Amino acid sequence: MGNADYEYCPHRVAIPPSKPLFKSLESSFKETLFPDDPFRQFKNQPLSRKFILGLQYFIPILEWAPRYTFEFFKADFIAGITIASLAVPQGISYANLANLPPILGLYSSFVPPLVYAMLGSSRDLAVGPVAVASLLISSMLGKEVNAYENPTLYLQLALSATFFAGVFQASLGILRLGFIVDFLSHATILGFMGGAATVVCLQQLKGILGLLHFTHETDIISVMRSVFGQRHQWRWESGVLGCCFLCFLLLIKYFSKKRTTFFWINAMAPLTSVVLGSILVYLTHAEKHGVQVIGHLKKGLNPLSVSELAFGFGSPYLASIIKTGIITGVIGLAEGVAVGRSFAIFKNYHIDGNKEMIAFGMMNIAGSCTSCYLTAGPFSRTAVNFNAGCKTSVSNIVMATAVMMTLLFLTPLFHYTPLVVLSSIIITAMLGIIDYEAAIHLWKIDKFDFVVCMGAFIGVVFFSVEVGLVVAVTLSLLRVLLFVARPRTFALGNIPNSMVYRSIEQYPVANNVPGVLIIQIDAPIYFANANYLRERIQRWIYEEEDKLKSSGQTSLQYIILDLSAVGSIDTSGISMLEETKKNSESKGLKLVLANPRSEVIKKLDKSKFIENIGQEWIYLTVGEAVAACNFMLHSGKPNPAAVELQGRDNMV
Amino acid sequence: MGNADYEYCPHRVAIPPSKPLFKSLESSFKETLFPDDPFRQFKNQPLSRKFILGLQYFIPILEWAPRYTFEFFKADFIAGITIASLAVPQGISYANLANLPPILGLYSSFVPPLVYAMLGSSRDLAVGPVAVASLLISSMLGKEVNAYENPTLYLQLALSATFFAGVFQASLGILRLGFIVDFLSHATILGFMGGAATVVCLQQLKGILGLLHFTHETDIISVMRSVFGQRHQWRWESGVLGCCFLCFLLLIKYFSKKRTTFFWINAMAPLTSVVLGSILVYLTHAEKHGVQVIGHLKKGLNPLSVSELAFGFGSPYLASIIKTGIITGVIGLAEGVAVGRSFAIFKNYHIDGNKEMIAFGMMNIAGSCTSCYLTAGPFSRTAVNFNAGCKTSVSNIVMATAVMMTLLFLTPLFHYTPLVVLSSIIITAMLGIIDYEAAIHLWKIDKFDFVVCMGAFIGVVFFSVEVGLVVAVTLSLLRVLLFVARPRTFALGNIPNSMVYRSIEQYPVANNVPGVLIIQIDAPIYFANANYLRERIQRWIYEEEDKLKSSGQTSLQYIILDLSAVGSIDTSGISMLEETKKNSESKGLKLVLANPRSEVIKKLDKSKFIENIGQEWIYLTVGEAVAACNFMLHSGKPNPAAVELQGRDNMV
Repeated sequence: MGNADYEYCPHRVAIPPSKPLFKSLESSFKETLFPDDPFRQFKNQPLSRKFILGLQYFIPILEWAPRYTFEFFKADFIAGITIASLAVPQGISYANLANLPPILGLYSSFVPPLVYAMLGSSRDLAVGPVAVASLLISSMLGKEVNAYENPTLYLQLALSATFFAGVFQASLGILRLGFIVDFLSHATILGFMGGAATVVCLQQLKGILGLLHFTHETDIISVMRSVFGQRHQWRWESGVLGCCFLCFLLLIKYFSKKRTTFFWINAMAPLTSVVLGSILVYLTHAEKHGVQVIGHLKKGLNPLSVSELAFGFGSPYLASIIKTGIITGVIGLAEGVAVGRSFAIFKNYHIDGNKEMIAFGMMNIAGSCTSCYLTAGPFSRTAVNFNAGCKTSVSNIVMATAVMMTLLFLTPLFHYTPLVVLSSIIITAMLGIIDYEAAIHLWKIDKFDFVVCMGAFIGVVFFSVEVGLVVAVTLSLLRVLLFVARPRTFALGNIPNSMVYRSIEQYPVANNVPGVLIIQIDAPIYFANANYLRERIQRWIYEEEDKLKSSGQTSLQYIILDLSAVGSIDTSGISMLEETKKNSESKGLKLVLANPRSEVIKKLDKSKFIENIGQEWIYLTVGEAVAACNFMLHSGKPNPAAVELQGRDNMV
Repeated sequence: MGNADYEYCPHRVAIPPSKPLFKSLESSFKETLFPDDPFRQFKNQPLSRKFILGLQYFIPILEWAPRYTFEFFKADFIAGITIASLAVPQGISYANLANLPPILGLYSSFVPPLVYAMLGSSRDLAVGPVAVASLLISSMLGKEVNAYENPTLYLQLALSATFFAGVFQASLGILRLGFIVDFLSHATILGFMGGAATVVCLQQLKGILGLLHFTHETDIISVMRSVFGQRHQWRWESGVLGCCFLCFLLLIKYFSKKRTTFFWINAMAPLTSVVLGSILVYLTHAEKHGVQVIGHLKKGLNPLSVSELAFGFGSPYLASIIKTGIITGVIGLAEGVAVGRSFAIFKNYHIDGNKEMIAFGMMNIAGSCTSCYLTAGPFSRTAVNFNAGCKTSVSNIVMATAVMMTLLFLTPLFHYTPLVVLSSIIITAMLGIIDYEAAIHLWKIDKFDFVVCMGAFIGVVFFSVEVGLVVAVTLSLLRVLLFVARPRTFALGNIPNSMVYRSIEQYPVANNVPGVLIIQIDAPIYFANANYLRERIQRWIYEEEDKLKSSGQTSLQYIILDLSAVGSIDTSGISMLEETKKNSESKGLKLVLANPRSEVIKKLDKSKFIENIGQEWIYLTVGEAVAACNFMLHSGKPNPAAVELQGRDNMV
């Protein structure tokens, strides 16, 4: 049976030779963990050169510093001073948000940027505390320890969590497991950030209304209950001041978007508000009329905090410290790497995700030993850095130096800074993060991504930050699993005037081939979809038979499975193919395969399925398979399966 | 630029019209939950016929009973009596394994088979208690309540867990979520069953050695410690008797495999052993010399147990009851459906997974109200049923009737049955389940499936049944996720004497096209792989450029992405394509797409990527894309990206 009967000689499907186990393990290990082949530049180099390249690989500043020019420095200096003017009030605000002493926000804008400048590969990222991670720290550690009743212990926990976040981030980078961060999709981050920004804004009502006590929960219902439950505690002085500054900041932001020449005003606005607010409070003694102020800030640089860390590790809260560290670490990475990559693409240079993770990790490890809490690459600060024309991460060094000056000499000036101004600064920054236009864009292009995004948003706003994250990641994974568990199948037809076969659904011009049903399978055939595919293929067959019967056309003789899109198969998948073959043969239909890929044909060969179906019934293209079937149909011969079936019936 | 320059007119890639949201939701809902289209036969039927068809759909016996003949009954009667002779000793043994009163094993072989005969769609499945689920019940509920110290409470918990298992199974079927069971792959079940059988065998050492106290743990280390820690308690009388019966059973099994005429002897062997053992004990009074016997069995049919259920629900163990119910329910389903399907394929009829789940669920719900514990379709009993020539599930009714007779009249005969005989019967059954040949087959065909199988096996044997299950399911899911997270990419070349392009790795004869790099992507482009693919495509490009540079060939001008195997894309994937386009254009390379599928082209259209890349640079086949690129290359014109790049450079 088969080939010998006709002249047409198609191309053979190649069965690649099976590699030795160790070789194939090695190559899949490399593809999984080193897709970017970082050792490429080390090849064929003398040892000394390899050493220098290695150093440059791990400490990027060694690579670009020799090429650094004075022109670059001028640009970086201006950008550095600009972000410093934002960093000081933002640092204090975010530390406040994390329920940590305000001075920690300044400390955290000093050491980590220096470390990042050495190790980071982004030229635009400005390092500092971030709002979402700050909120996470206060909500996760707040459950364990009350920050007001036991501030020392709370500080120890926060620093220890930062240390663990750093260790976790660095190990992800070193073990090249950066792809774990990829599982936070763009839609997840969008919804999550939007939700977190909403929650942060709502929390600022505490500062704006001058409330002394406030809920530790972050969901909208608890916050609203806390706000409206204390209506008699609202301080109008604080409220009025807050609204004025908020309007001021929002107006400036609005105009700076309209005209790019206003950019500098926008960048300086937070510092201006702080100065104006402090002067106002100092002159009117508003701190005695319900307007809370920062109060005393210790002069001097970051104290060492190794003993705090040691104390944190010894505490009974180790489990929640590690959990907080891992979650804040991942969120910090996801935001930081995404921000860094966006600007890198804009300026057309490449950043290495795994290297970034090591840089983030090292900066948080170093930070946690020098009284800094978790830092990453906040979007607002990075955008200002970019707009101010930074050239390299020297702008971070300039910023750190400016913050150092502030720590050494200027901290007393912040004594009278009203908290309400800090709240206004946070709200202004957060409103920029709620990107509803991007959510609408998701809705238009991909409904499921929109659902994931809204899942994260609603989870964060109505439940908690962790719930939002878990909901979004679960939904995203479910989508991937559903894609594999319920792969799409298509009937193919011939595109007129060609040998090309395409889905009839997509190309309505495509014509059915009489007597032949061509089915395309759209995913790897795995245990998770083998049963589904068996049933679905059965359904394709009887639906086609019904259609043919009702229209009185040639009855079905051949089933061609187009395996072009089947990247892989497992043993359940092979059983599925065997069962499908048996099922179709019992109906007198011959199963034909087209274009099995290397992974698939290798396993079909090993499992003897090729012998079972007949080597001559596996074709390189659908076109060749159809040609062979047509030849048999026109020669008037029944297909081999029908012959066999008839033979069996005769025997019975 | 583009098409206008040359004569060649390729086929257009069709963009299917976007369906309204509700329509597309409806169709994907149908594809996900009703792949087998169960309503097909209801179409275009009068209402009365629809009602009858509906009844027949839910109660299959109504469909086949009218066609039932006396010939069928003769065959079913013989098969039924045969499995009854196995069911009685097996039921008692498995109830023993579950630490439940032996009589429950008989009860469980009476009501559930009757229910299944009405509702089930398999003609070969023989219903009864199963070893693995029995073991699971004793290990999971044994943690909560000691079966010896508090047998009443333990029984209540076991019956309640059975009820929940039934409810869970039935709801899976009704909600058409049967595909959840598919996530237990063949490899998982193989390893899990093998491990459970090993554990069950080891536990039988208790019976064989006549030990009175035994560990509740199921792992090999605890069991061995328990066995060898009580060496002075070993009873040689019991051991000798056990070894004799074990040898007898194993020898018969061995010979029955050699000669099929011995089949009947094998089927009757357990009952023969029970009879022989009982007579021996009765004559020698061995029960007074360390040989434990079953003792008194209550005469009479199943008592109602609704009050037991109510008591179980009210107990503080509800959580572990539900957990036990769900896990044993899933395992029972997975084994039962797999067994049923195997025999259905053998006899070439179809069984409906969702209907089977409803039948299993109803039989366990009914069982739990009539003092039966969890039942499913044990492989050993079903195989005997099949070999004895059963025709329909009437054989289950015959078996149930025979068990009823036993319950009414014969229970006193089992008073002197030694437990050691039951242990021998269990060991003989279990040794058949440890399918090491299938594991070797997995190793040969699919190394990863072997790892999953061994993960389940080792987890069950060295830790616990649940650990084994969790390990195997996690590994299987990781494989699916890894497939999506790290899709394979291939460089394509032209197969000589054709317009066909295939992977150079699989077809070493395929030729590179000078100046053009063709990359095939093997999976949907999702958030989980977008970053990886961007880096991997970059690497393909620079590797190709390096190769061309060193050999002094034409430099690269075009990148063709073959999207034939990309079934779907999300917004992260679209961003990836946009970034890849930007990156290649910055190197003067033009990005060309080939054969985007309907899902993909729809989203590319909505996100304006088609306008961005140019409609004329998207081709139906790789062949046409290459032809267009070649035309441009031979006409000596630079590609549009290079033109643009040069223009930009001139402007600067």
